[in-house]
Amino acid sequence: MAAKVTPRGEDYSRWYTDVVQMADLADYSPVKGCMVIKPYGYALWENIKAGLDRRFKATGHVNAYFPLFIPLSFIQKEAKHVEGFSPELAIVTIGGGKELEEPLAVRPTSETIIGHMYAKWIQSYRDLPLLINQWANVVRWEMRTRLFLRTTEFLWQEGHTAHVTEEEAIEETLRMLDVYTEFAVEDAAIPVIPGRKSESEKFAGAVTSYTIEAMMGDCKALQAGTSHFLGQNFARAFNIQFLDQNNEQQYAWTTSWGVSTRMVGAVVMVHGDDQGLILPPKLAPVQVVVVPISKGEDERAKVSKAVARVDGALRNVVRLRIDDREEYSPGWKFNEWEMRGVPLRIEIGPRDADKEQVTLARRDVPGREGKRGVPLQGLANEVQETLAVIQADLYRRALAFREARTFDPKDYAEFKETMDEGFAYSWWCGNADCETQIKEETKATIRCIPLAQEPGKGKCIHCGTKATERAIFGRAY
Amino acid sequence: MAAKVTPRGEDYSRWYTDVVQMADLADYSPVKGCMVIKPYGYALWENIKAGLDRRFKATGHVNAYFPLFIPLSFIQKEAKHVEGFSPELAIVTIGGGKELEEPLAVRPTSETIIGHMYAKWIQSYRDLPLLINQWANVVRWEMRTRLFLRTTEFLWQEGHTAHVTEEEAIEETLRMLDVYTEFAVEDAAIPVIPGRKSESEKFAGAVTSYTIEAMMGDCKALQAGTSHFLGQNFARAFNIQFLDQNNEQQYAWTTSWGVSTRMVGAVVMVHGDDQGLILPPKLAPVQVVVVPISKGEDERAKVSKAVARVDGALRNVVRLRIDDREEYSPGWKFNEWEMRGVPLRIEIGPRDADKEQVTLARRDVPGREGKRGVPLQGLANEVQETLAVIQADLYRRALAFREARTFDPKDYAEFKETMDEGFAYSWWCGNADCETQIKEETKATIRCIPLAQEPGKGKCIHCGTKATERAIFGRAY
Repeated sequence: MAAKVTPRGEDYSRWYTDVVQMADLADYSPVKGCMVIKPYGYALWENIKAGLDRRFKATGHVNAYFPLFIPLSFIQKEAKHVEGFSPELAIVTIGGGKELEEPLAVRPTSETIIGHMYAKWIQSYRDLPLLINQWANVVRWEMRTRLFLRTTEFLWQEGHTAHVTEEEAIEETLRMLDVYTEFAVEDAAIPVIPGRKSESEKFAGAVTSYTIEAMMGDCKALQAGTSHFLGQNFARAFNIQFLDQNNEQQYAWTTSWGVSTRMVGAVVMVHGDDQGLILPPKLAPVQVVVVPISKGEDERAKVSKAVARVDGALRNVVRLRIDDREEYSPGWKFNEWEMRGVPLRIEIGPRDADKEQVTLARRDVPGREGKRGVPLQGLANEVQETLAVIQADLYRRALAFREARTFDPKDYAEFKETMDEGFAYSWWCGNADCETQIKEETKATIRCIPLAQEPGKGKCIHCGTKATERAIFGRAY
Repeated sequence: MAAKVTPRGEDYSRWYTDVVQMADLADYSPVKGCMVIKPYGYALWENIKAGLDRRFKATGHVNAYFPLFIPLSFIQKEAKHVEGFSPELAIVTIGGGKELEEPLAVRPTSETIIGHMYAKWIQSYRDLPLLINQWANVVRWEMRTRLFLRTTEFLWQEGHTAHVTEEEAIEETLRMLDVYTEFAVEDAAIPVIPGRKSESEKFAGAVTSYTIEAMMGDCKALQAGTSHFLGQNFARAFNIQFLDQNNEQQYAWTTSWGVSTRMVGAVVMVHGDDQGLILPPKLAPVQVVVVPISKGEDERAKVSKAVARVDGALRNVVRLRIDDREEYSPGWKFNEWEMRGVPLRIEIGPRDADKEQVTLARRDVPGREGKRGVPLQGLANEVQETLAVIQADLYRRALAFREARTFDPKDYAEFKETMDEGFAYSWWCGNADCETQIKEETKATIRCIPLAQEPGKGKCIHCGTKATERAIFGRAY
């Protein structure tokens, strides 16, 4: 822990991998492109899972599990789907020592295999809506990988629902986008822009894809979750039909939506600083760390008593860690827990103990400014309130950061400069050619067409022809 | 739900698959040997996971995640391991459209990849013990598969720990066997026999394998969890070394232990009857189902009021389902929830409502005997107590069943007859030849050498030479 992370200003990309490794979130594995999620990183993922799973269940979804392997022929059934995913497949050709008759794809996503099962399970409109989520690992063969952000194998959840009507399916697609937005804002303290993907950026096989887009600490965009309205595309490919109330066969309308371990990368890049990770209290595996400070027997005894009181007051209230290791100095421990992003530190020295108080130190406010003494009496309330303040402040800070770096360039020349500094929120004519040329000229893509925009008219930032929608442009992970 | 399950007495094997499918636990998939775990079955698995995960964390373990893919060369590093697992591997040979230089095995278990990472993470005795668990899917190519019991892909947890001393690793191995035993007994209401595996039945690469063995409803044995002391076998194969307190390099001592979705099959076969599933309350996704019974508007209004009171009293106390669907009759609902094994049903008719009472019907006690009226006043306590009684009774019943079918045959002739009726608890000389011959002659294997046995001496049930240990023999899944 003596080593320091590369400062963000020096090399953001190295800063990121330094933090991920030094905060013990993940490690490289001997298998190309696959990562090992270490216990601390996995605990963070478990909290992300819990926050999402609770919301899925509250909106009527249930969990299930579908096979890892998908016959290649299934993936070929939906034309756009095969086009999008074929180049990324890992394929099993040998099983039990024998060449397989039909090779199996390791699932890159499960619309096809789930579509096949839904066709079997759904008979009548009474079986609908079918609202199922799956927590699973998926594999997409990637050339350039980065821990959490882009790995060959990753963990995620994928929701798959089927509905009687188009309206209901669209409603579901947007409901889950709302769930993602709420999770990002409330639990991860990440401001996101919910919006529609352009045609060229949508999911392979979708009618419309929606996304939540976040700005990272280097002003680049990260797609943090997606929700897709699949129309009847997969229903037709897999024959998901039901008898409606008039006793007629109809194709179902389906959706799918997912959030992955990428979210861990987003948390790192939205909140972290040059001392390491900063975790939002709601997701932090350790919310409060207690560091006793003492020299000699007398002080130690006195401080230990105070630590025991803190332990008693907080143990069932917050996720608490008491760091009473004797082989490390308090300063060393401060650095370690700062690196790991623990939101709140409690220091207890002999003078604190004498005064029946402790010192609180906020991870998100460095130095003296983030420190204050509080009495042991009423500590639990004080700590909970401080964690709530940290949670809110992290969100506000990230939002202010994004707002300060989201521009409304007056022309394309200014737009191009903007792309080095953040997002542009600009009129777009809707033409894919403009989109492609912008990408070629600036490396920026349309992150989304925000849902919350005033109706209006303007001129396309690229070609100048009339436009009715504005889009968020940015370079992306 | 009109269909009935095949009675156990007619065909136990068909009874099992009928129940699994008709209770909506799982379905066959289009991929050979892979199953779909349906929402109800997955909810049961989630409760199993929660019961185990809580105990793992209480014993100091943390979760992490390691890659799905393992280079073939890794599996070849431990001689016995490769011998045991090679024939069962699914192998990825193509990734991203290209033939891979080194084929990748889809993990059948993760000792090798985790061993590789541990070698990197462990430097000093201060890094030990390392106590990590992983929840994951694994793949073992199986020729004959059965839902939950033996599937090509299954879900499980695998614990992997590394220790400074042999004693500590053995202690860990046995501690986790205890954890499994406690889970089986307390949560799953399944009596198990903790014991050692014979040399021929142990895990490929282990020094000693321990198991918990349970008797199913057809008197066959099911291995419900295993815990392995791996000695230094994997430490040597993967070079897991640490500097000890004398500054000398030592190989670590490792363990691994696992419980899988097989446990779902065990719950079905230990408790189920000819009406379907019977779930132990601690694991049941729905612990209490409320079925209102009324005819006409007046009755309905009256009953609805009582249902609302029950809902209010129980909602936050038990996992509750109110089945107020109007398209099904009460009798149809009774059958459905009996099939699904819900431990306790609450019936509320107009007369119940008048008397401010409800009728409780126990799933495990059929007919009138399992029914009684209880007042609405104090219902929550009454229901919780009844669930506790059901939980305890299920365990007692399963234990009595096993005890009545565990024999002490006086000679090998009697032993052979015994094998049609249950377990034999017999002296064994420890010779693998005897074991093999018994298997050939009776299809029974040594399930385990129970840990809890009085020291003593006897004569081997097969060869008659002197023996110092008794073993549980039985036919197994």
